[in-house]
Amino acid sequence: MSTIKKVAEEAKVSVATVSRVLNSTGYVNEETRKKVLKVIKELDYKPNSVARSLFKKQSMTIALIVPNITNPFFPEVARAIEDVLSSKDYTLILCNSDDNSEKEKKYFEVMKQKYVDGVIVVTSTLTPQYIEEKGIPIVAVDRFIDPAIPCVSVNNIEGAKRAVQYLKSTGCKKIAHIRGPKNITSAEDRYLGYLNEVESESWFETDYVRCGNFNIEQTTEETRKLLNENPDIDGIFAGNDLMAVGVIKAAMQLGKKIPEDLSVIGFDGISLCKMTNPEITTIAQPIYEIGSVAAQTLLDLIEGRVIEKKHHQLEVTINKGQSTKTRGE
Amino acid sequence: MSTIKKVAEEAKVSVATVSRVLNSTGYVNEETRKKVLKVIKELDYKPNSVARSLFKKQSMTIALIVPNITNPFFPEVARAIEDVLSSKDYTLILCNSDDNSEKEKKYFEVMKQKYVDGVIVVTSTLTPQYIEEKGIPIVAVDRFIDPAIPCVSVNNIEGAKRAVQYLKSTGCKKIAHIRGPKNITSAEDRYLGYLNEVESESWFETDYVRCGNFNIEQTTEETRKLLNENPDIDGIFAGNDLMAVGVIKAAMQLGKKIPEDLSVIGFDGISLCKMTNPEITTIAQPIYEIGSVAAQTLLDLIEGRVIEKKHHQLEVTINKGQSTKTRGE
Repeated sequence: MSTIKKVAEEAKVSVATVSRVLNSTGYVNEETRKKVLKVIKELDYKPNSVARSLFKKQSMTIALIVPNITNPFFPEVARAIEDVLSSKDYTLILCNSDDNSEKEKKYFEVMKQKYVDGVIVVTSTLTPQYIEEKGIPIVAVDRFIDPAIPCVSVNNIEGAKRAVQYLKSTGCKKIAHIRGPKNITSAEDRYLGYLNEVESESWFETDYVRCGNFNIEQTTEETRKLLNENPDIDGIFAGNDLMAVGVIKAAMQLGKKIPEDLSVIGFDGISLCKMTNPEITTIAQPIYEIGSVAAQTLLDLIEGRVIEKKHHQLEVTINKGQSTKTRGE
Repeated sequence: MSTIKKVAEEAKVSVATVSRVLNSTGYVNEETRKKVLKVIKELDYKPNSVARSLFKKQSMTIALIVPNITNPFFPEVARAIEDVLSSKDYTLILCNSDDNSEKEKKYFEVMKQKYVDGVIVVTSTLTPQYIEEKGIPIVAVDRFIDPAIPCVSVNNIEGAKRAVQYLKSTGCKKIAHIRGPKNITSAEDRYLGYLNEVESESWFETDYVRCGNFNIEQTTEETRKLLNENPDIDGIFAGNDLMAVGVIKAAMQLGKKIPEDLSVIGFDGISLCKMTNPEITTIAQPIYEIGSVAAQTLLDLIEGRVIEKKHHQLEVTINKGQSTKTRGE
């Protein structure tokens, strides 16, 4: 295998000069530079990235920490991030945290020790203090952490309001909400949006809100209980698409027709919505755009460019499926 | 931040001794060892893993290269691998190759330069020669590469046979197959299993095999064409679960009832099968077991243990959903 020493010998320059060419640091005569690059190519010399990262404290690696790799939302975001990063020769490390603070911290320790250049994180547990101490460029996705930390998400409150408004516009009279976990900002915001639209309604009862924990099985069970106790509920806003699947399963188990007896709307817009039958009406996040804006923002941070906009709140759209009635039907 | 030098000073030993303790290399007096470990703990010293990996050529990192992170099969496998690895303090790097040989090779270059300890790969394009040259411990998952390379998969031919036999047992008279890409061994084996069960049947026509490329949209289109041209087909074996979703979509678009007019069986057993309506009958791979056996085998390779069994062919089971009739119905 070629070494930096062989390159230096062949190019008749010092090892330090080869290193300056490789790392674009310090002055190197243009002719010398070309000669070194030519020899590097001829010898097929591949600089050892571990040694280089020790020197430059840079590894061309970025970590993505997500709470649950089996919720298709996160692979879809990862896909977009990877497309941006690999075009710039960065490698993506994917870490699965299970929303567990200890696991997240362990990943941060490992990442820092490996000189990861930056982290994109979906977290509800890490504090801004903890993140700042690590000194790694970071971008939050989906869940807001702190005004100082760039974040790419959607306006979950507004999105949730639109979900409920849409159910109302198709004729729903009693709308329940299956919410995500209490400590997760996006779940909390969607709950607040729901509340905003229903709390002044005469039919509203706090009992119409149940927790599905972003989990299909738990949602199926909670929904079955909810509908058994309140058979006149005719619309459900599920806090994410996976839970919408759980709601539909529960409704079917109870022999309710969708959307005739019960309308269901989800949140996220993952491809799964088009795979179920009925296809799920959902408040769609621009998933690919979220990933690519996050990746681009992180690269800006890493490469020292000015971040003009720290907080991106991208627009949601309604993807109409078959789990809701058409308006005025 | 603590350094190895500070630890040495505090413990009143040489830096070399601290290094020997950290890396469990060379002789260190037991009392000295305990003292060093105590000081490391007191000072909260974290050895720099980049410097350590340069020394030990080991990074406690393993890469998983998959063709498509948005096919839920792979996140489910990744989940299992990660559970085994993180219990042993390894970090998992996930790489998405798009079944693209150039991307796979680029990942291997990056991985080698970063002293990744091992690679778990799902590939159809890398040659055993290429892999051997890299000198990295490797385990193949899902797709066989070479007798010399450990592989964890299921017997796809047998699984496919069981799929067709099951369709026959529920009364299907004309069974078609939507297959995966031609260059992928698992897709090829499932096709061979299908062929084995149908080629001697009087009704069989080669036109009953179409390529869905493991892709929902393409499958929907191909199935629509197939069923329009052959309206008497009453059973379809889809080469994976995503394609089974595509088959069901096509059937619905044509107004065919499932399973009354058309029975559908998939392959893989991803959780998605229970989210669709009808739920998909499928030849289920033991996905979690595949991931954990692969991870364990790789750790055995890395840590120099004897690999007693190089090729694991795990058992499939039939998960009965609602996309096939019950037997004798």
